[in-house]
Amino acid sequence: MKIVITGGTGFLGLNLARAIIKRGTMAGPSGRQEEVDGILLFDQVIPDRLPDGLDSRVTMQAGDISDRDTVFALVDRDDISVFHLASVVSGGGEKDFDLAMRVNLDGGRHVFEAARARNGLPRVVFASSVAVFGGSAMPKVVGDTTKQTPQTTYGLTKAIGELMVNDYTRKGFFDGRTVRLPTIFIRPGKPNAAASSFASGVFREPLNGEECVLPVRTDVQMALLGYRNAVAGFVGLHEAEGAAIGDDRAVVLPSGTYTVEEMIEGVKRVAAANDITLGPITVRPDPAIEAIVAGWATHSEAPRAEALGLPNDESLDRVIQDYIDDFMPTH
Amino acid sequence: MKIVITGGTGFLGLNLARAIIKRGTMAGPSGRQEEVDGILLFDQVIPDRLPDGLDSRVTMQAGDISDRDTVFALVDRDDISVFHLASVVSGGGEKDFDLAMRVNLDGGRHVFEAARARNGLPRVVFASSVAVFGGSAMPKVVGDTTKQTPQTTYGLTKAIGELMVNDYTRKGFFDGRTVRLPTIFIRPGKPNAAASSFASGVFREPLNGEECVLPVRTDVQMALLGYRNAVAGFVGLHEAEGAAIGDDRAVVLPSGTYTVEEMIEGVKRVAAANDITLGPITVRPDPAIEAIVAGWATHSEAPRAEALGLPNDESLDRVIQDYIDDFMPTH
Repeated sequence: MKIVITGGTGFLGLNLARAIIKRGTMAGPSGRQEEVDGILLFDQVIPDRLPDGLDSRVTMQAGDISDRDTVFALVDRDDISVFHLASVVSGGGEKDFDLAMRVNLDGGRHVFEAARARNGLPRVVFASSVAVFGGSAMPKVVGDTTKQTPQTTYGLTKAIGELMVNDYTRKGFFDGRTVRLPTIFIRPGKPNAAASSFASGVFREPLNGEECVLPVRTDVQMALLGYRNAVAGFVGLHEAEGAAIGDDRAVVLPSGTYTVEEMIEGVKRVAAANDITLGPITVRPDPAIEAIVAGWATHSEAPRAEALGLPNDESLDRVIQDYIDDFMPTH
Repeated sequence: MKIVITGGTGFLGLNLARAIIKRGTMAGPSGRQEEVDGILLFDQVIPDRLPDGLDSRVTMQAGDISDRDTVFALVDRDDISVFHLASVVSGGGEKDFDLAMRVNLDGGRHVFEAARARNGLPRVVFASSVAVFGGSAMPKVVGDTTKQTPQTTYGLTKAIGELMVNDYTRKGFFDGRTVRLPTIFIRPGKPNAAASSFASGVFREPLNGEECVLPVRTDVQMALLGYRNAVAGFVGLHEAEGAAIGDDRAVVLPSGTYTVEEMIEGVKRVAAANDITLGPITVRPDPAIEAIVAGWATHSEAPRAEALGLPNDESLDRVIQDYIDDFMPTH
């Protein structure tokens, strides 16, 4: 079977592809395990060469997800699954509403329509976010059955995608599942336009001996999930039987809640254990970022994920150590 | 100021226009009362002549709401408000998914974009429905803060519209409000493709001496609101101050819950009091209609509407008597 990953050369997309390569098989449209003979990583821009941990089964393609024909050409087999991760992120969506609507909403519709056009019932896993929650109606603890009241255009488009996944599934157009992600850490590489970018930067930059400038105060709380378990959530939800999910296909992934202060203490602890000298951490609040982050849920429940056996992190320190092991090999 | 009503020659649209004609003024984009000098009723098809209760301030225009240019040409002044009622209904949307998406989702976006394109902050009132609720995740009693889990494509498009109204309002693109309607009764005229059509037919056809064939069993419960108070809800929510609504702009209108048996008893009581001989009522369940109706909420709370002073019906019998007074003048 073939696996299409939109946003496939992003951090989560690449790690998902690596996990699928390691597995070798995935549940096909029939529900039976099928050998994966092709993984297509589709993204706006792609790297010059295939990243590490992938092999000849993996191809990369650059293109515009808001172009219907481009998207339909990606989903070109009936023995196929689609992971739809491509998205304008939160900060980017606040800067350009129309871009967020075109890429996230129109692009998402193209992906869903392309899957619908196949014979059989391909599995489609949509990446949503706890950014669907927010505002004055948001309870202290959010979960699978909390009303979506997004306070960013990014969150709006994710909430719409969740609703579409449910209806396309109900109609029998495809077998859809939504992974609702908390903030995923620690992302390697450079900061991005996501308002949550600092939740990786606070670990990554100091570990790399660089300065981290924090755009929020240190008592800010964030719900975080390590990238290894985020990928496990994508794979696990793809593999789950539809009947075990039910008619509301959106599943909040597990997370842990930490203050920025706890993140700083954690990186100091793990750096000391690994003999790493940290770069400096400076607090310089950015009102625009603070306003977005203040609207996010800090605590969430994940009963559906737990019932499906999707894993949570062992500890904050464990995720920091994973990052050092996975992305700082020369350390 | 000008008032645009999409779906304007439907039952609710016409009665809303009549109510605005009677008022004479509405809150303009500034919040101050302004004289209404034009009401445009836009619809897919329009009657040959202006319906009763309207005057020279009212014009009608037929067109396709899924055509962007058509919609932009309707919203051609800055001193304007838009009531967006046009919609493929529930039964129709289940028969034709793509039509529901084109008319309700794409058409809605055109309306919202057209309002956004104006200077000032026009008020936009969007007609949603308690059909945004359903499925296994739906609680026994639904309300303003219940998660939307629609089980029809109609409900999907209404939930999406609600989310968009919130975000366009948050962004300062317009001042949006969503009226979430229960089943509205008693609609005059002919049955339509809405799965809830029988909730008017059970009164209307017998009062007109005709047979009503009920597609559901008589122990089925429905949450109903009389058309007079539905119109009062539209007007009241338009007139409310934005700050009084808050950042989640969707307001469940009040309703009463009745079994079909209670509806039948009610029409018998009021018919007797008015010396009307009823046509026969026959129960002939239609599994497709029953399945849709079974997914709807039967009980709802409306705390936001109550806080804003939006009225509920005095009684079932009162709405039946209103219908006789308003639509059976020769009786």
